[in-house]
Amino acid sequence: MIRAGIIGGTGYTGGELLRILSKHPEVEVVAVTSRREKGRKIHEVHPHLKGFYEIEFIEPDIDRLSECDVVFTAVPHGEAMRYVPELYESGLKVVDLSADYRLRKDKYEEAYGKTHEAYIEAVYGLTELHREEIAKARLVANPGCYPTGAILAAAPLAELELIERVIFDSKSGISGAGVSPTEFTHYPNLHEAIVPYKITDHRHYYEMEQELGRFQEDVRISFTPQVFPGSRGILTNAHIFLKGELEQDELEKIYRKFYDCSYFIRFQKAVRLSYVRGSNFADISINRGADRAVVVSAIDNLVKGASGQAVQNMNVMFGLDEWAGLDFPPLFP
Amino acid sequence: MIRAGIIGGTGYTGGELLRILSKHPEVEVVAVTSRREKGRKIHEVHPHLKGFYEIEFIEPDIDRLSECDVVFTAVPHGEAMRYVPELYESGLKVVDLSADYRLRKDKYEEAYGKTHEAYIEAVYGLTELHREEIAKARLVANPGCYPTGAILAAAPLAELELIERVIFDSKSGISGAGVSPTEFTHYPNLHEAIVPYKITDHRHYYEMEQELGRFQEDVRISFTPQVFPGSRGILTNAHIFLKGELEQDELEKIYRKFYDCSYFIRFQKAVRLSYVRGSNFADISINRGADRAVVVSAIDNLVKGASGQAVQNMNVMFGLDEWAGLDFPPLFP
Amino acid sequence: MIRAGIIGGTGYTGGELLRILSKHPEVEVVAVTSRREKGRKIHEVHPHLKGFYEIEFIEPDIDRLSECDVVFTAVPHGEAMRYVPELYESGLKVVDLSADYRLRKDKYEEAYGKTHEAYIEAVYGLTELHREEIAKARLVANPGCYPTGAILAAAPLAELELIERVIFDSKSGISGAGVSPTEFTHYPNLHEAIVPYKITDHRHYYEMEQELGRFQEDVRISFTPQVFPGSRGILTNAHIFLKGELEQDELEKIYRKFYDCSYFIRFQKAVRLSYVRGSNFADISINRGADRAVVVSAIDNLVKGASGQAVQNMNVMFGLDEWAGLDFPPLFP
Amino acid sequence: MIRAGIIGGTGYTGGELLRILSKHPEVEVVAVTSRREKGRKIHEVHPHLKGFYEIEFIEPDIDRLSECDVVFTAVPHGEAMRYVPELYESGLKVVDLSADYRLRKDKYEEAYGKTHEAYIEAVYGLTELHREEIAKARLVANPGCYPTGAILAAAPLAELELIERVIFDSKSGISGAGVSPTEFTHYPNLHEAIVPYKITDHRHYYEMEQELGRFQEDVRISFTPQVFPGSRGILTNAHIFLKGELEQDELEKIYRKFYDCSYFIRFQKAVRLSYVRGSNFADISINRGADRAVVVSAIDNLVKGASGQAVQNMNVMFGLDEWAGLDFPPLFP
Repeated sequence: MIRAGIIGGTGYTGGELLRILSKHPEVEVVAVTSRREKGRKIHEVHPHLKGFYEIEFIEPDIDRLSECDVVFTAVPHGEAMRYVPELYESGLKVVDLSADYRLRKDKYEEAYGKTHEAYIEAVYGLTELHREEIAKARLVANPGCYPTGAILAAAPLAELELIERVIFDSKSGISGAGVSPTEFTHYPNLHEAIVPYKITDHRHYYEMEQELGRFQEDVRISFTPQVFPGSRGILTNAHIFLKGELEQDELEKIYRKFYDCSYFIRFQKAVRLSYVRGSNFADISINRGADRAVVVSAIDNLVKGASGQAVQNMNVMFGLDEWAGLDFPPLFP
Repeated sequence: MIRAGIIGGTGYTGGELLRILSKHPEVEVVAVTSRREKGRKIHEVHPHLKGFYEIEFIEPDIDRLSECDVVFTAVPHGEAMRYVPELYESGLKVVDLSADYRLRKDKYEEAYGKTHEAYIEAVYGLTELHREEIAKARLVANPGCYPTGAILAAAPLAELELIERVIFDSKSGISGAGVSPTEFTHYPNLHEAIVPYKITDHRHYYEMEQELGRFQEDVRISFTPQVFPGSRGILTNAHIFLKGELEQDELEKIYRKFYDCSYFIRFQKAVRLSYVRGSNFADISINRGADRAVVVSAIDNLVKGASGQAVQNMNVMFGLDEWAGLDFPPLFP
Repeated sequence: MIRAGIIGGTGYTGGELLRILSKHPEVEVVAVTSRREKGRKIHEVHPHLKGFYEIEFIEPDIDRLSECDVVFTAVPHGEAMRYVPELYESGLKVVDLSADYRLRKDKYEEAYGKTHEAYIEAVYGLTELHREEIAKARLVANPGCYPTGAILAAAPLAELELIERVIFDSKSGISGAGVSPTEFTHYPNLHEAIVPYKITDHRHYYEMEQELGRFQEDVRISFTPQVFPGSRGILTNAHIFLKGELEQDELEKIYRKFYDCSYFIRFQKAVRLSYVRGSNFADISINRGADRAVVVSAIDNLVKGASGQAVQNMNVMFGLDEWAGLDFPPLFP
Repeated sequence: MIRAGIIGGTGYTGGELLRILSKHPEVEVVAVTSRREKGRKIHEVHPHLKGFYEIEFIEPDIDRLSECDVVFTAVPHGEAMRYVPELYESGLKVVDLSADYRLRKDKYEEAYGKTHEAYIEAVYGLTELHREEIAKARLVANPGCYPTGAILAAAPLAELELIERVIFDSKSGISGAGVSPTEFTHYPNLHEAIVPYKITDHRHYYEMEQELGRFQEDVRISFTPQVFPGSRGILTNAHIFLKGELEQDELEKIYRKFYDCSYFIRFQKAVRLSYVRGSNFADISINRGADRAVVVSAIDNLVKGASGQAVQNMNVMFGLDEWAGLDFPPLFP
């Protein structure tokens, strides 16, 4: 059994890691940390998991975590870099769910306007794009939720340098905003609403630019995120203006080839968030219009957009089946 | 024109007073207070009201409010009693939307387990029950949202002392919890949920007991509140076990007689929150079963359950038509 | 008093016309038709309007409608053209809420792939764009809900021929789908979802092309509609790629000038559907990014997107204040 | 491997059986029927299950089903009785998810006002109450969703004959209304709503009366169902008026003893539908008030309230662990 630890186990991504790993056939969670909740049982913080864990939250203590084979860091951006270097040096494997190691150093410093004080080179953990490097990596930077949905929708065309311009108009469930109440998550502010935010300057843009730019240097990307009244899910409309003529069936061929052997990519005539809810699938539909192609992707932001993909990456890092412990069906309706 | 002031104009009930009074034919809002927002325009805090007010928030200052003919206090429980006595003494009329003056002194002290340090006798402002006293009152205590829905559903039978036992199972939109984000109002905690709270000990119980007890001394009341995924509305199921035999048509006759000439009471075959949304109506349906009668009432918690009824009371206090400025239709669907 | 008739009074737009006109100071609704519901009182079909109307639904009968000064046709596309020509010939004024008269004949036939058998030239009733023609018109074609939100967001830039390309990504409440249950409106299919449909080929595209094309012949438009979990509202992200350099403040100046004296256009730092809900306002925010401007518009699809704008047009046709009967505030939260 | 068949595989309970059984370690689904969809792949009707099944829907044909070890009938009430007798006679085991075999013959005929033409004695499949009989049964009648939540909340007190009166006020997600669009499931009719229906005469009452009456003959039950804006979940408030004095801790002791060894019953300080969503758990909280105890239960109506419990019953019938294939955690948030 792989011994897993989680730094920051009280948030939504921590809870989701616990949910998924509770049934993973090859993993045992041996340590979960929380400064605030240390000494409490898992189910006192995550009542839905009552009956699944007997352990208690502990202080984030590298010594106690060093008995792990893998550690997931599920703490806020900026905080992960306090743990990752030491964990990395101690020789175990790390999957970081924060934004701290997703960008190359130069891009990070452009995006954040400051020096990265604890930089280590990581592999960007969009599994479908980087399987081989992930298999050899000791530090995987798990992608952002929006970039996961966006990059998956455009990568096959970027690889062939066919994109003139792409506009990602993305809609997320509010769980992406985390477990702490804010004006943003206040029920009446989201009720019967669809709320764009950081309309032209969300930092997830840089991940999209970095990853799609690997394929196609001149790719032009625009991105607007928004939240919709729901807890889970990200639906992304990728409005893609193409270089050259490409019919519907050619587009489909390109996508199917690119994602050949990718267990978690499914093509649907029409995607629905409820078709992927609770699962690690990324569903994709391709819609060729007269002016552009609209590729729509649907993921569960907490699974494929966070904790599920983290486990998928762990599977690859340890040579397991990519879908080990993740091959459960979505929850519809 | 009646000159109106609002103490505490930044919350949902304050915003709703501003919405309603903006079109009231006999009222001009001349002062709105907010410690935190003083100096800002109304629409900077309530963007939906852009174009409706030119005034700014001011400090809560009794001197400046004393030019008003009526003041609405829309501040939290416990805070209203800091303003009401002085306002009252200055001779103007007061409608208090807090819980501070709803209960008789003895009942208040039972409910809150402490002495009421600033007690004044007020008229309980459930307009349909106390019109005549309200017309003569200078201080009206506007009812709680749950008690409004509950008392309206049971009063006609209590008046005839026909209730053996009544269980109020009430469901409220979350706007009743106010404008400040909390765990309770955090979107993922209410999504696809129905959340009972203070299941056997909500303080609104005391208002129900006081008001129904005026009619029928031995009335036995049970009450459980809960929130449902929505912003506005309170639906109350009053499960009423009756003394004696009463058929459907007799029940209907009793209710129609009791609410004769009550503009805002409407009888519906089936009530829906969307049939009253945004309006001051209280819709009622009567359902006689083999074992009990279930009277279902529907109100908008921010209108008939708060600011609308406050204006209704003001209308009565000033001798206007009860429905002046309130006779707008609900927003369906 | 203006005597108004409504053909097709049982749907959401019919109900909304009845809601709005019930308080219009210059209008009396004298006839409402419904084949299916004839003989029933208004409130038997629209229980929320109980107390507001005493009339009954009648057969759609041109003779009885000819006593009206204005008739609103609120029937499905394709059906309006059965009534409009005869109404038009009888000399009264007509506001058609269907799609039958919105497009010029040639564009209609391109969009629908068939001959328009009952064509009459109408004025396109986006009031802010065509006030002067509407004032003289006898037949006004009320715009589609999506085009209203989209065109308002882009017209000021189109007028100056500054648009290189615009992508409208629009999200609508489900009330736009009408009062009849379908797979599309089935609750579990929309719960926690955001559902794109007619992703590249919605017919509302043609209205956008016609109206923005009046200003700027070479405008390139893309449009994708979707529904979100809510009843009312359309939020439109207009991703506008500009010709030439234009800073935030220049953009704002252009928009403010274009909409000078337009009562129903409000500029907000951030728009929210709840800031316009139930009202005829169209709120707009302008967001200049490095690559593009994103203009976001918010309307209530049943008010500014349908029945409210129909009344606004009627006001203009009869020389009333544009906002007569429409100057009520939105319902927030 | 147990060979399972499903009659009626296109509805929500059919889909949920397919979801659960896809990962059941001891079961293979070999036949799924649908008159309308025969010849189509499972995922063409249930796109969320893409990748999980290769079989096609077949005609409901007893011959082809007779190769099964167990058949689940997931067809509407009244239709199951067309299949069950023949299946039963063919010697295989049957779990019927309809209402056709839940009530004893006399009670059925009282409830439905007609003769049961195809009556067979079945075991009522509320697993926690009838494990031993289920283990020996060949026909198990799977309980209704509301009765599951209600009976679990009251059975421990009924067993001790401690109930003077119980009022079940239950709130269900709309998926219980099935996959076909109706006025009831029309999104705008449920948005921001809580809709009571069959307020005093829902047929599920008879199941509650039959099962609680087994324990306590004189139990007095009242029941009102309603739907809330959500897809899944039933929350039941059991307002229980007790015979005799019973403190909180005594109540807790009674419940814990009654449900000792029941894997799927969990006690929570406060139940939430999101703590059981997607799982077979029934969470219970006990709240002793001055006047009554309120026992609140939360289940997923499609899992513990339908297909999950059906699999739980199958497990017991075949001597498997009760939780085989069902021990997955809930989906929160």
